[in-house]
Order: sequence, then C-alpha cells, then structure tokens
Amino acid sequence: MSVNAHGGVRDHTIHVASRRGAYPVRLGSGVLDDLPDLLDHYAPAHRYALISDSRVWGLHGTRVASPLEAAGLDFLPLVFPEGETSKDVSQWERLSRLMIEAGFGRDSAVLGLGGGVTTDLAGFVAATYMRGVPLVQIPTSVLAMVDASIGGKAGVNLPAGKNLLGAFHAPRLVVTDPTFIGTQSPEARVEGWVEAVKHGAVLDVDHLAQIHGRAGALREGDPEASTEVLARTIAIKAAVVGEDELERGRRELLNFGHTLGHAIERVSNWRLSHGRAVALGMRAESRAAELQGLTPEGTSERLAGVLSALGVHVGLGQLDPAAIVDATVHDKKVRRGTIRFVVLAELGRAHPQGLMTLDAAALRQALAELL
Amino acid sequence: MSVNAHGGVRDHTIHVASRRGAYPVRLGSGVLDDLPDLLDHYAPAHRYALISDSRVWGLHGTRVASPLEAAGLDFLPLVFPEGETSKDVSQWERLSRLMIEAGFGRDSAVLGLGGGVTTDLAGFVAATYMRGVPLVQIPTSVLAMVDASIGGKAGVNLPAGKNLLGAFHAPRLVVTDPTFIGTQSPEARVEGWVEAVKHGAVLDVDHLAQIHGRAGALREGDPEASTEVLARTIAIKAAVVGEDELERGRRELLNFGHTLGHAIERVSNWRLSHGRAVALGMRAESRAAELQGLTPEGTSERLAGVLSALGVHVGLGQLDPAAIVDATVHDKKVRRGTIRFVVLAELGRAHPQGLMTLDAAALRQALAELL
Repeated sequence: MSVNAHGGVRDHTIHVASRRGAYPVRLGSGVLDDLPDLLDHYAPAHRYALISDSRVWGLHGTRVASPLEAAGLDFLPLVFPEGETSKDVSQWERLSRLMIEAGFGRDSAVLGLGGGVTTDLAGFVAATYMRGVPLVQIPTSVLAMVDASIGGKAGVNLPAGKNLLGAFHAPRLVVTDPTFIGTQSPEARVEGWVEAVKHGAVLDVDHLAQIHGRAGALREGDPEASTEVLARTIAIKAAVVGEDELERGRRELLNFGHTLGHAIERVSNWRLSHGRAVALGMRAESRAAELQGLTPEGTSERLAGVLSALGVHVGLGQLDPAAIVDATVHDKKVRRGTIRFVVLAELGRAHPQGLMTLDAAALRQALAELL
Repeated sequence: MSVNAHGGVRDHTIHVASRRGAYPVRLGSGVLDDLPDLLDHYAPAHRYALISDSRVWGLHGTRVASPLEAAGLDFLPLVFPEGETSKDVSQWERLSRLMIEAGFGRDSAVLGLGGGVTTDLAGFVAATYMRGVPLVQIPTSVLAMVDASIGGKAGVNLPAGKNLLGAFHAPRLVVTDPTFIGTQSPEARVEGWVEAVKHGAVLDVDHLAQIHGRAGALREGDPEASTEVLARTIAIKAAVVGEDELERGRRELLNFGHTLGHAIERVSNWRLSHGRAVALGMRAESRAAELQGLTPEGTSERLAGVLSALGVHVGLGQLDPAAIVDATVHDKKVRRGTIRFVVLAELGRAHPQGLMTLDAAALRQALAELL
C-alpha cells in the first residue's frame, strides 16, 4: 500500500496465485496512467487487441488509448455491442476472426476493458486464440473489479445457460482503477457490491461489517471507500482462487447464492439483474439451510440488513418458487444428479463440510418467503 | 513392456508429463479390451460423451461400445460427419450443445475415438465444456496415434487457417490399439508414418533407420512392426511434449516440415493430404537450409529415401512455389513478421539455436526443385 502521484489516494497490489505463476492486481485511483509501463513489465507483446463494448469504449476509450498511443504501443481496438447477449459463441468467433484478419500472431496479447461480459469474453478469446495468448484485464465496473477480472474464469453463454463454454485462463495482470466506477449508476455499482457481500458472508464477517458501515458511500461510488472495500474483497477472492484455481473445492464457496441466483435469472428470462438475483439467492439459500437446521436462525435476515443498506430490494415479484428450484438442475455444479449448495455454518464462515444438499421443499419455502 | 493376454503381442506404457501431472499412453494390440478398467482408474466419471466421426463409428463403434456396455458405464455416442470440414466452430458448438441437452455436468468426461480431426475436436470440446472436463483419447489412425492424441493440443479450424482456435488440454489417458490401423488404407497409414519420419529427422537418426528398414511392413499395417515403431516415436514425442507442453521452445521442433507443409495444404486448397504436404515441407525446408549452408548437402535427399520407401510420392505437381512461400505468413509461428523454421544441423539433430529464418528465395528454389 502506498501513496501515489495521483492525488494522494492509496494504491495496492494484491497477488493472485495461479498454475502459471502469480499475477498482480494493481488497485488505485489513477493506476491506469501506469498502463504502458505495467504492460511492458507483465505482458510485453508485439501487438495488443483491446477488446471493449460499445458503451465502455464510448465512455473510456480515449482515456485508455491515449497513454498507449503516447507510449507507442501497437494496439487495435475491437469493439462489440454492449450487453450480455454479446457474450456468445458468434461474438467470440467474430473477435477471433478480426484478430486473424489483422494478422495477430502468437506474440500478441489481449486486453479486456469493461465489465464482466467483456472480461469473460476477452478472456475466452485470449484463452483460445492460437491455443492461448497473454491476457490483461482492465475492469471498469465494480462487479468486474470484485469478481470477473480475478481468477481466470473465461467463457461464453449458450442459450441453455450462462458460462457453459469456457476455460480457465489466468491474466498476467489486472489493472483496477476505481475512477472508472464514477460513470456507473448506483444500481450498477451495487451489482458488484453484492458479490463483496457474498465474500463477507462466506469467509469474513468483519468485511461484511465494513460494507454495512460504508454502504451509502459504496452506493455513491465514493473513491476512497470503494478502494478500501475493493482492497479487502479482492484479497479474499485472491486467497480463495489462489488455493483452488480450477474450482475443485474451496473456490466453490464463492458460488454462495449463485445456484439459486442463476436459476432466478433464467426463470426471470434475465429481466432480473445478476446482482439482484444473487442477493435473492443468498437470502433463500441461507434461509433454506436455516429451515433444515444447518444455519443459525436469523442469518438470512442479517444478510438482508446489509443488502438493504446498499439499497438492494430483495423481493421475488411474480417469479414461481417451484420453477426456480426446477431450473437449478441446469447448474454446472450438479454432480451425479444432486444439486449442492454452499451452506453457512454462521455469518462469515461456510460449513467446513463443503457443499451440501438442500431439500427442494425447503428451497421452495425459503423462496416463497421472499414473494 | 510386457506380454499381454491378447495373443502375446507386447504392450507398452509411455508416460507423458503435463502441467496437470503425468498421463499414460497405453499401447498394444488388444489394449482396447481394458478400456473400462482404464477409465475407472484414470478418468472415473459419472457419464462419458463418446465423440467419433461417422466413418470410424461405423467401423469400430460396436467394438468400443461393447466393453463399455458390459461394464455398465453410462456413455452417449456423439457422431459427426467424417472429414476435416467438421473440425470447425459450428461442430464444436453442436457437440457441446448436445452434451448440455443430454444433461452432462462437470462430473462428465469426453472420449475421442478416431483420427486427428476427432482427437482435436473432442479435445476442444473437453477443454471448454463447463470450463473443462477430463479427456481420454482413443486414436484409430496412425497419424492420431503418433501425433494428434499426445500432448494436449486441441482446437478447430477457421476459414483462414487450421487450428487457429484451440487450447492445451492434456488427456488423462491415451489408449492406443494398433489393431485399429488394419482398416486404414496404406495411403492413410503412411500419413502417420510421415510424422514418425519427422520425429526421427529432428531428434533420432536411429528411429529414422528403424522406419526405413520396416517401411514395407509399416505401409501394410503389420501389427508387430507398427507397435515397435509406435512405441519409439510416441516416446520421442512424449519426451518433447513433457519438456515443453505449451510450445514455447523445444516442442516447436516438431513443426519441422509443417511451416511449408501448412502453406502447401492451403495453396492446394487441401487437395493434397497433410502427410504428403508435410513430406514436401520437410524436403523443401531442409533443402532450403542446405542452400543457405545451414544443413549438410544431401540431407534432403536422404529424407527422400525414407519417404520413398514408405511409398510417399514427393512432387509439387502444379503448385506455385512463390504462392506457397507467400502463404507461410499466415502460420501461427510468425513472430514479429518473420517466418522461422526448424533447421537440421544434421539428420537426426535439430540446430541447437532453435528456430531460424530462411530466405524466401532459397525456399522458392527448394520448392521449384520438387516440381
């Protein structure tokens, strides 16, 4: 942690272990100015493909391109239409083909500039282009800073579900500049803070308290509060990912709220945002575990308190609890036909036994309580 | 090496190192009978997707399915149309979607049964299905036994070139039963033995002599000669791949003949087979290096002797040398705009300096000598 040249805001470096060696997450307001030097050090390449969506490119393209141009780096912006529907096989193929047409060789690197859709899509392009080229992530949303840019998960959706095709491809570097999040709406920011709540719920009750105490500032995108909370939540994610990059054990804990959350997104036909759906998922999964006596009573309510402070409205609306439970069978975590969930032994600590089964009846009841 | 229960033919186990740990290549006539036990030991899974093309499935489907059925394993054959054109993005997506529709989870594994197209395609499905599931290769062609099934290279073609999208995804097990190659034509078998010639040319002159001495038997698919040559050539490939799985150095040696070979395939619009194109490529690349004084005179001619004993006709026909040299710029090995080649210091030993540039004029002249 140090004071940098950009107005005295602290910056941080968090190291994430991976099969290919550790990579740094550089975090701080203004670290983007160091991008050329960071690329030169961590991901030197003949050429860079700079992948971004139309919205982010419009907002931040000049800000990112200028230092690259000034440093004389050879880069090509590849822009795709904003939105989750772009995270598909055809967009992945299109971006790869554009790189081929532009003559990118194996000595290229991919930069992903944007939110989670972009970091996942750019990651999959990098993972598969000529069997893999180096990747640098530059997340611009809280969600991507907290979650998608770290840990090397990359992939695209199929009509049957999200992230069904993909790879693990660790970045060489993550450049996390919280000044980007000033252009997000409060609702969009909160999408990301919900994932931070998840980190706290599963692994660090003090982090949960930190988020609760600064909820208003986080919602507003206050740079100092954001940087502090990002530093802690990224460190939690980095520790888990470093222990279990390929999600065979401990990393599965980060799926808390996501098994129901993904089903809720699917049943809502993706009208409900990912953050809202995961918030509902955390509430209902923890409540179902309470009903089965696995989690102390009141845990789900305490989570509701933090979410509510962030302004997350947790209500199921018109969605059918039974349909949601049925939809969980499409989840990637299904093993031998049984759906398994992350269960909290208490707030801030997952059950040491790992994933556990929850009864469909308990899940339906827990969801019904959120109607 | 041991005598097995299937008629006294020796079987071999060759271990290949990979990032994920070593995996065995089980080689021998009749090892396919052990498939259920081998799967149980090396790739236990809830369900298996058995990927094969229409031709191989028609020839060998029952032979492979019967022991799996007898052992009570849950498997689903997924058959695609025979041919290189199936090795594309749409077939990869189709196979993945069929697995999704059939409810395959992360606790599945993929079996690739067939030639190089199948092992590459099945490998890419396994590499990317839910970010990667275990893979077992069951090569049925000499080419796949010698080359494609070992080392974890997986991928699909784009219209602009072969293997442009892919991944490194090491198998858990390779089951190599030379009885399969009895159903190949002599021409098809020789496709594979050309790759064995390449291993000898670059790394082991004694292996080259072994192939030369048994060329007739190899062409006819004699099981004993085939098993002996397979054992040695697989061991060479395994040693190289084990040192350099991700092709950052030593593994590039296995591209001898392939830089021109791929260009020849492209310029012939894929009318020329891969083996024929690589044979031409080895001849012309070594001859060009002779012309530049990097390789001893007569090396290319000695290679021609081995190839000729195998019945490989090395002539360029109507293809234009200049067009072939121009087409090399699409090769993945292009770095910073320069095309680099594997150069032989002598027969059986690559130049210690690694890849080297060859003049376009020398390449054109060497190719012209093959007209």
